[in-house]
Amino acid sequence: MTAELTALVEARVAAVAAKDVETLVAQYAGDVTLFDALGPLADRGADVERTRLETWFSAYRSPIDLRISDLEVVADGDAGFAHYLFHVHGTMTDGTEVSMWVRSTVGFRRDENGWKIVHEHSSVPFDGATGQALTALTPSGTAAG
Amino acid sequence: MTAELTALVEARVAAVAAKDVETLVAQYAGDVTLFDALGPLADRGADVERTRLETWFSAYRSPIDLRISDLEVVADGDAGFAHYLFHVHGTMTDGTEVSMWVRSTVGFRRDENGWKIVHEHSSVPFDGATGQALTALTPSGTAAG
Repeated sequence: MTAELTALVEARVAAVAAKDVETLVAQYAGDVTLFDALGPLADRGADVERTRLETWFSAYRSPIDLRISDLEVVADGDAGFAHYLFHVHGTMTDGTEVSMWVRSTVGFRRDENGWKIVHEHSSVPFDGATGQALTALTPSGTAAG
Repeated sequence: MTAELTALVEARVAAVAAKDVETLVAQYAGDVTLFDALGPLADRGADVERTRLETWFSAYRSPIDLRISDLEVVADGDAGFAHYLFHVHGTMTDGTEVSMWVRSTVGFRRDENGWKIVHEHSSVPFDGATGQALTALTPSGTAAG
């Protein structure tokens, strides 16, 4: 079943590249708890996630190129979780080039409709001294160029 | 088994208040993957976590008061995860008063030694416009005073 969850995570990359909101939203449980990289502290519900995805996708004039690294999946019975790093790259509508690594943890539960995401936590760490989000980190620990 | 994982999370609050590094470190698998609220992007290993805890605890001259909110646990067989918000409050050695809400997700796997934390992800969100970590958010969505 870790293979099933790995496939679900990988399907998300293609869906983001295609800005395919429906495929992404279909993976979420209706009452999913969301801890997103951008505020607020927490949010709840597949409908809220739909709006977040639409806002995210419409902020880019280019395709959104995701690359996943360091994926690990733990699952047993009807519960499981995946954690990974992902690199997001693209050009926003205002011309800003985004190239950033993000950490993500996804919690799954299986019900009669199959595996659903019941929890998603994405973030970047921050610098305690400056209060700045560290958006230029890379998995190797060196700063991006 | 969700009760077991709830008890493990709640035991952490008392251990942090007591600055009890050993009790906390004993909950981790040796190869735990850490996504911490402060940099780097990712880290690995109970020994690394021990150093982080020692650094955290020694930065406070007061006890560290943790309060957990919105705890949810999903588990089946030998896999499970918990997610919650926690409020950290205390006085640092330089006199800084910390009062901040953090999101946390903890992934567990059970082996012959019982349940161990194989993954921990703690963070605050950031403001995409300013790049600042949002350390004054509260669960209700209003800013802390």
